[in-house]
Amino acid sequence: MRELPQHYGKFEKKNLETPQTIADKTNGKRYNSIMARDLYHDAVKRALQKEGWQITADPLKIPVEDTNFLIDLGAERLIAAELGSERIAVEIKVFGGVSLVADFHLALGQVLNYSLILREIDPNRKLWLAIPADTYQTFFHGRYPTRALAHIEVGMIVFNPNSEVIEQWI
Amino acid sequence: MRELPQHYGKFEKKNLETPQTIADKTNGKRYNSIMARDLYHDAVKRALQKEGWQITADPLKIPVEDTNFLIDLGAERLIAAELGSERIAVEIKVFGGVSLVADFHLALGQVLNYSLILREIDPNRKLWLAIPADTYQTFFHGRYPTRALAHIEVGMIVFNPNSEVIEQWI
Repeated sequence: MRELPQHYGKFEKKNLETPQTIADKTNGKRYNSIMARDLYHDAVKRALQKEGWQITADPLKIPVEDTNFLIDLGAERLIAAELGSERIAVEIKVFGGVSLVADFHLALGQVLNYSLILREIDPNRKLWLAIPADTYQTFFHGRYPTRALAHIEVGMIVFNPNSEVIEQWI
Repeated sequence: MRELPQHYGKFEKKNLETPQTIADKTNGKRYNSIMARDLYHDAVKRALQKEGWQITADPLKIPVEDTNFLIDLGAERLIAAELGSERIAVEIKVFGGVSLVADFHLALGQVLNYSLILREIDPNRKLWLAIPADTYQTFFHGRYPTRALAHIEVGMIVFNPNSEVIEQWI
């Protein structure tokens, strides 16, 4: 087994990209989407809480060798006393880039990678990709995005960022 | 079945990103990697030809509804008279971005998406992701990248851009 390179993933190391460094690199154009991401992060958190989920990790750290991958949220909900609890990991994506399809490919690759790591480290925690309802309407309800996520067994949470409600679990 | 949005994928439409528009958006930083991509494209082509592959499409157009997805190369090789020919599609990736892991996630999502489309439209053509040997050495030989590609049944071609030789089919 080879070592995982240190630059592998969103992780807790030096040189972590901050909104400012990202903005610097891209001429400021992504800065608004970074702020939107923070807003959406809280919206998804509250939407999950409304459905009885307890946020247990924010972010969820997944240790891989000498590194922690960071998935946006970890949550847990009691199903029934005898069944114990259901556990999920939620990666929130705002599609604010110049190309929806590049954003989609990036999100798809990321959740595939995370889901394979989770399957090994925490196999009972299902991974969900959370996207705002407008992104779902304009892009994700298409046949190919839905099928690609289903193929890798990653669920899709469609949330309304204004009402802070989860509209669909797909 | 829903319509595939028009902005879905690398495709033959107006508003296609050119190296210049990409450079404009990103403050010129990706321009070198675009030029590198063209060089690598020819290197992979010649490397395949050296192994007896005939390049049959450059790029390979995959029609999806009113759009053509473009995969970098299509190639074909006679296996044996009675077996007919083996057909492949090759997506070439140069990892020149600011984050290797983001480049990896993007490539992974892209080949997953393309492979699902190919499976439907041209099921006997296998998709391969071609990466230069130095990228393989620094990143892709790791356990997670290799496993993620294997999981989605996409092969990996490691090529040497200087000698224009394929070093490994993985």
